[in-house]
Amino acid sequence: MEDFTTNPFGGPDDDKLHEECGVFGVFGAQNAAALTALGLHALQHRGQEAAGISSFDGAHFFTERHIGLVGDNFTKPSVIARLPGDRAIGHTRYSTTGGSGIRNVQPLFAELSGGGFAIAHNGNLTNAMTLQKELQRRGSIFQSTSDTETILHLVATSQKTQIVDRLIEALGRIEGAWSLVCISQKKLIGARDPMGIRPLIMGDLDGAIVFASETCALDIIGARFVRELEPGEMVVVTESGIESLKPFAPAPSRFCIFEYVYFARPDSAFGGTSVYQVRKRIGAELAAESGVDADIVIPVPDSGTPSAIGFAEAAGLPFDLGIIRNHYIGRTFIEPSDSIRHMGVKLKHNANRSVIQGKRIVLVDDSIVRGTTSVKIVQMMRDAGATEVHMRIASPPTTDSCFYGVDTPEKGKLLASRMSIAEMSNYIGVDSLAFLTIDGLYRAVGEAKRNNELPQYCDACFTGAYPTVLTDQSGEANVRQLSLLA
Amino acid sequence: MEDFTTNPFGGPDDDKLHEECGVFGVFGAQNAAALTALGLHALQHRGQEAAGISSFDGAHFFTERHIGLVGDNFTKPSVIARLPGDRAIGHTRYSTTGGSGIRNVQPLFAELSGGGFAIAHNGNLTNAMTLQKELQRRGSIFQSTSDTETILHLVATSQKTQIVDRLIEALGRIEGAWSLVCISQKKLIGARDPMGIRPLIMGDLDGAIVFASETCALDIIGARFVRELEPGEMVVVTESGIESLKPFAPAPSRFCIFEYVYFARPDSAFGGTSVYQVRKRIGAELAAESGVDADIVIPVPDSGTPSAIGFAEAAGLPFDLGIIRNHYIGRTFIEPSDSIRHMGVKLKHNANRSVIQGKRIVLVDDSIVRGTTSVKIVQMMRDAGATEVHMRIASPPTTDSCFYGVDTPEKGKLLASRMSIAEMSNYIGVDSLAFLTIDGLYRAVGEAKRNNELPQYCDACFTGAYPTVLTDQSGEANVRQLSLLA
Amino acid sequence: MEDFTTNPFGGPDDDKLHEECGVFGVFGAQNAAALTALGLHALQHRGQEAAGISSFDGAHFFTERHIGLVGDNFTKPSVIARLPGDRAIGHTRYSTTGGSGIRNVQPLFAELSGGGFAIAHNGNLTNAMTLQKELQRRGSIFQSTSDTETILHLVATSQKTQIVDRLIEALGRIEGAWSLVCISQKKLIGARDPMGIRPLIMGDLDGAIVFASETCALDIIGARFVRELEPGEMVVVTESGIESLKPFAPAPSRFCIFEYVYFARPDSAFGGTSVYQVRKRIGAELAAESGVDADIVIPVPDSGTPSAIGFAEAAGLPFDLGIIRNHYIGRTFIEPSDSIRHMGVKLKHNANRSVIQGKRIVLVDDSIVRGTTSVKIVQMMRDAGATEVHMRIASPPTTDSCFYGVDTPEKGKLLASRMSIAEMSNYIGVDSLAFLTIDGLYRAVGEAKRNNELPQYCDACFTGAYPTVLTDQSGEANVRQLSLLA
Amino acid sequence: MEDFTTNPFGGPDDDKLHEECGVFGVFGAQNAAALTALGLHALQHRGQEAAGISSFDGAHFFTERHIGLVGDNFTKPSVIARLPGDRAIGHTRYSTTGGSGIRNVQPLFAELSGGGFAIAHNGNLTNAMTLQKELQRRGSIFQSTSDTETILHLVATSQKTQIVDRLIEALGRIEGAWSLVCISQKKLIGARDPMGIRPLIMGDLDGAIVFASETCALDIIGARFVRELEPGEMVVVTESGIESLKPFAPAPSRFCIFEYVYFARPDSAFGGTSVYQVRKRIGAELAAESGVDADIVIPVPDSGTPSAIGFAEAAGLPFDLGIIRNHYIGRTFIEPSDSIRHMGVKLKHNANRSVIQGKRIVLVDDSIVRGTTSVKIVQMMRDAGATEVHMRIASPPTTDSCFYGVDTPEKGKLLASRMSIAEMSNYIGVDSLAFLTIDGLYRAVGEAKRNNELPQYCDACFTGAYPTVLTDQSGEANVRQLSLLA
Repeated sequence: MEDFTTNPFGGPDDDKLHEECGVFGVFGAQNAAALTALGLHALQHRGQEAAGISSFDGAHFFTERHIGLVGDNFTKPSVIARLPGDRAIGHTRYSTTGGSGIRNVQPLFAELSGGGFAIAHNGNLTNAMTLQKELQRRGSIFQSTSDTETILHLVATSQKTQIVDRLIEALGRIEGAWSLVCISQKKLIGARDPMGIRPLIMGDLDGAIVFASETCALDIIGARFVRELEPGEMVVVTESGIESLKPFAPAPSRFCIFEYVYFARPDSAFGGTSVYQVRKRIGAELAAESGVDADIVIPVPDSGTPSAIGFAEAAGLPFDLGIIRNHYIGRTFIEPSDSIRHMGVKLKHNANRSVIQGKRIVLVDDSIVRGTTSVKIVQMMRDAGATEVHMRIASPPTTDSCFYGVDTPEKGKLLASRMSIAEMSNYIGVDSLAFLTIDGLYRAVGEAKRNNELPQYCDACFTGAYPTVLTDQSGEANVRQLSLLA
Repeated sequence: MEDFTTNPFGGPDDDKLHEECGVFGVFGAQNAAALTALGLHALQHRGQEAAGISSFDGAHFFTERHIGLVGDNFTKPSVIARLPGDRAIGHTRYSTTGGSGIRNVQPLFAELSGGGFAIAHNGNLTNAMTLQKELQRRGSIFQSTSDTETILHLVATSQKTQIVDRLIEALGRIEGAWSLVCISQKKLIGARDPMGIRPLIMGDLDGAIVFASETCALDIIGARFVRELEPGEMVVVTESGIESLKPFAPAPSRFCIFEYVYFARPDSAFGGTSVYQVRKRIGAELAAESGVDADIVIPVPDSGTPSAIGFAEAAGLPFDLGIIRNHYIGRTFIEPSDSIRHMGVKLKHNANRSVIQGKRIVLVDDSIVRGTTSVKIVQMMRDAGATEVHMRIASPPTTDSCFYGVDTPEKGKLLASRMSIAEMSNYIGVDSLAFLTIDGLYRAVGEAKRNNELPQYCDACFTGAYPTVLTDQSGEANVRQLSLLA
Repeated sequence: MEDFTTNPFGGPDDDKLHEECGVFGVFGAQNAAALTALGLHALQHRGQEAAGISSFDGAHFFTERHIGLVGDNFTKPSVIARLPGDRAIGHTRYSTTGGSGIRNVQPLFAELSGGGFAIAHNGNLTNAMTLQKELQRRGSIFQSTSDTETILHLVATSQKTQIVDRLIEALGRIEGAWSLVCISQKKLIGARDPMGIRPLIMGDLDGAIVFASETCALDIIGARFVRELEPGEMVVVTESGIESLKPFAPAPSRFCIFEYVYFARPDSAFGGTSVYQVRKRIGAELAAESGVDADIVIPVPDSGTPSAIGFAEAAGLPFDLGIIRNHYIGRTFIEPSDSIRHMGVKLKHNANRSVIQGKRIVLVDDSIVRGTTSVKIVQMMRDAGATEVHMRIASPPTTDSCFYGVDTPEKGKLLASRMSIAEMSNYIGVDSLAFLTIDGLYRAVGEAKRNNELPQYCDACFTGAYPTVLTDQSGEANVRQLSLLA
Repeated sequence: MEDFTTNPFGGPDDDKLHEECGVFGVFGAQNAAALTALGLHALQHRGQEAAGISSFDGAHFFTERHIGLVGDNFTKPSVIARLPGDRAIGHTRYSTTGGSGIRNVQPLFAELSGGGFAIAHNGNLTNAMTLQKELQRRGSIFQSTSDTETILHLVATSQKTQIVDRLIEALGRIEGAWSLVCISQKKLIGARDPMGIRPLIMGDLDGAIVFASETCALDIIGARFVRELEPGEMVVVTESGIESLKPFAPAPSRFCIFEYVYFARPDSAFGGTSVYQVRKRIGAELAAESGVDADIVIPVPDSGTPSAIGFAEAAGLPFDLGIIRNHYIGRTFIEPSDSIRHMGVKLKHNANRSVIQGKRIVLVDDSIVRGTTSVKIVQMMRDAGATEVHMRIASPPTTDSCFYGVDTPEKGKLLASRMSIAEMSNYIGVDSLAFLTIDGLYRAVGEAKRNNELPQYCDACFTGAYPTVLTDQSGEANVRQLSLLA
């Protein structure tokens, strides 16, 4: 279910949306860094390109940042030994670009006048560029192009004296989506934006407090799930205990519904609702909405599998593995030769001919972004002898870009933004194509239907209804300086 | 289905048997090395530790050998450009050990008095050590501990003048299992041992001849399956065409039945029989032999999945993903710290609690080797709230070591060699445990039953009935010199 | 004469003082980065641990920084190609410590609100820590522990609008020694502190303007020497030409006299005076002051050689190579095993027994810092059969630490700070020991004698007479925070 | 005197001849590998590209081979710890080429039928290719193109039973120059070819026996010089003591006279004669033969320095450092960009203008090979203001290639093979040019004159009088196969 974000040669699959980050933090546990490494390993699907951990041992802060997987970089005892202390935060990152890549890897750390401060952030600010220009005018020197550094400079230039007050002042100035974890000399802080767009949950491991993007990161270390942070909540952990603050103006909750569709691991749960069960219900809703007379239900592995199982059960059709996936993918800095690149999708997928041949198949995938992969997979099914190919998509058409921490192509490259469903069906080459309706999706997550006045979730990628202002998207700030600091 | 041979941190999973090699060869195709890289990528499940390719461009031989995955090492244009020519052979290898590892990576090449010769081999010789001592007495200097080098020295010291005759003479002296591909200045040669223990198939790509361990390697390059090489057959490909030789004394066919159970990719086929369908039939046989009153069928991913689907269909029970696998595994030379190692199985697997809780589950796995992983997975199921755990194994008890190219623990470490099924059931902690019978396995591959006088397959790992003599296993040769050449 | 700053295994020789940096800049030359690489190669003796180059191509700034030698890192066409433009600055650095080493490598670059700005600095500020604390209180985030970053933040936070004004404002706040080169979008700027403690010279290459720490960096690129920058001078180079500013309060010149003794390359010249000829004159002065009845004059290679030649000529004694030096020294990150470390000085030097045996020798070295090497070399001479060993040192006793960009041990570890000459003679084990007098040194550089009221040079390491205030050395700032940013 | 074999960017200087190897061996010393590393460090001038050590701990053989300097690769405790035992041999190597480089690095090791055997060799066989073809016909598989492997295969295929007998049989078949050290399970063996072309000396370290190419390798470990091995002598060291064998037909001694001119370190001695003193006498002979009216004597550093001192003393002229050398040279795999390559000699040398300007100079260099560097250095002297440049060469014209372990250009590329002295003088651009006469050279090494009937030394590079047959240089063997084993 997890390795869904790599292309055949290990770079990001540009026919999927990508969560940009996962965060983790722990306070009061021996070997905090090792626990953080485990948590990040469980959150690896939220970002495979780089990872980092910062710890504090009561006297000094320590940070390790590496390009590559957690399991490749944070399991050596020598690395963990360089991260002593009973508190740590960590971050996995989806993408870094160019030679200066390591500068964008989090956590970021700064020695502030009041002491050290480290921060890891999942989300995206919609006024980062505007703030950055203002900070530069004031004399702040930026090291990276990450939004997170903007937050760090806002904290650094705050004239408040207490770190919590400085952070609150900084967060009060930013717009967008942010779930973040920070450590200072005395505190672990977790905070979630006022609409709760990105997830952040809290757990307990024998008295140690844990923050993580998803519950699966609690499972791996055997921690108990306590609760989700509420939208706009800041939880401050010290040796004296936990304090919950609500320092920001209240706003309606708008959790990202795509976490259910694709981003989150199926064994995670949000709001007490299992992601896996939501996906199975999506399959059932899809079968109800767009059933078809066919012989067999085939998932596009691995992300389409739960919905395919749900579809097959609801439709009373057999479920079978008609596409076999090759998990051995080159991982690092690979430049495939032309002759290999043309092999395309076959490097990752192969038709299981014995299952497909002579059958009318329902192919279940989670979403369509650019559609390039869908075209190839459908052709592969036909080459393997499928007599009919009916594609069913476990979400509504993806028509709009995300500005809240998800890597999406610009709107014009989203297939659904420029084609009708009939046109898409024709382009992809299927006998029929159907998407889940937006209300079907809301039903799958347990709502009666979408509240069009005030949607219960952020569903902007399906509807264009962005819950925040998009400051950087308008005016001069729009032209992002790409390389602020070589 | 494929990444089943790594442990949580990327080393070999010592609770699985491991195929030791995959081979590939092509003659008469532009960009032969790129095709070979693709073929090896499709055969990556047969060996993840190292890979190599040798090519010949009409004048010179070229060889590249690398520790690591095909996709990490053989996709750069610069590497492929160093392998020019219209013919090439390749090899993926399961394990290399120690600092001298690269010496054991194939293909091996030698400049013989008559010209260059490269060889790649899947299998294992049972008289390699005996032959090696004899060759050393004669003055041969060994560079590695691989059986394949023994074959190479036998070819080098043959006093025949033609390469085919020299190879036949060499193969006439060896015992054991060998499917091999070789190139000389004029020829591509594929050969399979007299019993056909390891697979070797032939394909055609627009007139170019292809050899490969499995059909999935034909699919990836779009080649047409022609036929399997027969046991004892040697196929010699030149620019004039193909010649089939049968130079060895005929012997009864004894193809490795474990290829169906676990080694081969599910989308491959042997003898016209789909591996995936065999595995589903295994599940159905298992349900018939050892059905159980339960709520749900759960595969141990990914290798148990086809049998679990077959079991669920036959038993009329729902199939569901109760275990979620983390595919992001560190790959290279990682030494997990103690604190992480103790997390054990959780690094790779997590219970999908929403599926498991309150359920009586049937857990389907392909085999039990040492049993260490099974113990942890069962405990994980119970922790997730399973009320009953019934384990069903898609093969008979693995009681004996393999000496034909499969990495197995010594017999004493095989759980089934030292415990009864009742004892194993107790050790693993399940409510019930059942293995497929040997006749059930033969039925799944299409036989009425096992012919106990002359078994149709090599099933020595289940029965101890080795089809060849085991020369090195007796007498003084038994003490293997580990490091012949530092 | 040049490789005098490495210990036997390539780390810094802790029995020598070390110049901390060399700088270079060029404006208006095609392939400015390649010229800068050459200039840095010629300045390599001023810092061997790391080097960096920044260039500007009219639109963007580019920076490459590497641990290691210029010749190992800046000669590949691919590296030079990443540094396009007709203007560039470069820096070689003596030492970096710890894992965050690369952060301290210069040039430093910042995107200021008015555009990019890169800076390279030779020298040391004596109020850097004090300023850094103030800047942090204001909200500046430091990335390194280098003084140079302090200058950069002062420029960034200046509220002037023109870069020259901002730089002048920043430099007006710092104390200590600084020769620096900077590039902005329109300008190359060279500047030297009001006392001219560290060198900075200007040259011309077919109309392109060049700045460098020493003249040898002009020679390597075939540039013509124009003049030295005057103390307190700032030279601003634009496409319109050169402008000389004198924005700081005038101060008496105090050029570092140790540049003549040891730091500079012998083929460089300052103030029209050849360093090599100064060293020969030092040898002659030493012979005049402390002649001795002996058979032969032996240099401690390579830094003692010019003075030894001067001594031999003046004393009418033969000059001979009695110590042979092994130039093949391991360079990077080497941890010698104990058994090798105990071999000590022999790894670098061997007695040339045929020259030494049975002779009364005069051993000439440039200076004594800790004295550890001297002890070993004298013993080596005695082991080789020297009947008498008279040591003559080409400078006065080194009694005080430098705070102006030279790496010195703390005062207590300087042999001459805790022993009389007689005690040193006994400790080192020589038959006689003499140092050059301070007036002898001033004579060698062309003065009649030292002006004790207002010394013509900075000679603080011999006299303790520091020409500037040492703000950081007093009060709380004294406790330097070692790791401001992990 | 030492770093004379690298070009400005660390590759081999193609305007010098290069010794191809140094060897070292020790028996009966704790930490034999560390001693060997030290010895190789002292022999680094005999080969800078790669080094290796083999040791034996009473049970197993261990080998480490690395590209690069001894000081970069053999000083880490972890490396030395992988080489346990009280006996070891080592090797430094001048050049390795191509991707298969490490295969050519020595010592070579083979597990023979009678036990392990490691060998390191300085020299070159003149019938290696002929023997290699014969061995391949017999079935031997070669891993490298090194002559040394030919010796190893001859030992391996010998049908004698004792290792000493096998080695004698093997050495009886080879022609050329060889000084070698070997270890077997019981013995350390040193052997020198019948004419003693390459050096090999024996020392004693507290009872442990040491072999080395030069005495400077004894000095570094504090070992006592015992004697040179005689031409044709084989010394066998066991725990019982030392045995000297003379198994080969006697031949007249022909030690390489170029060892005195250039190869050996000046602090080494052969036959009781100091290399440094020979070089000074060469300078004196040169002054006597070809004196000139000039102001100053300038060495081309570092190899011309001893002869320049000798010349200056004999001629009564001042000696001065008119060329300053930059020792900081990039070492590894560097591809200088065109713009830098054109800077040529300046990367390594700079004129010391204050010494040169307005002077008539005598420039002393050890030899002229291609002459390319001489042209540049003379021009540099003129640019620095020399009014006359007289070049004096400390050896006769180098007219012929060496086939005994010295890397020389083919004859046609040797300047002296295609130009008269007058032509060379004109080509190099000097006011006068003189070489030492061959008899002058013989006088400097202590002979009255060269015995033209039976020269006392091998001086083939000056005379073409090769002391052995050159089998491979005639007939078909001449076409060397470059890449026997990829």
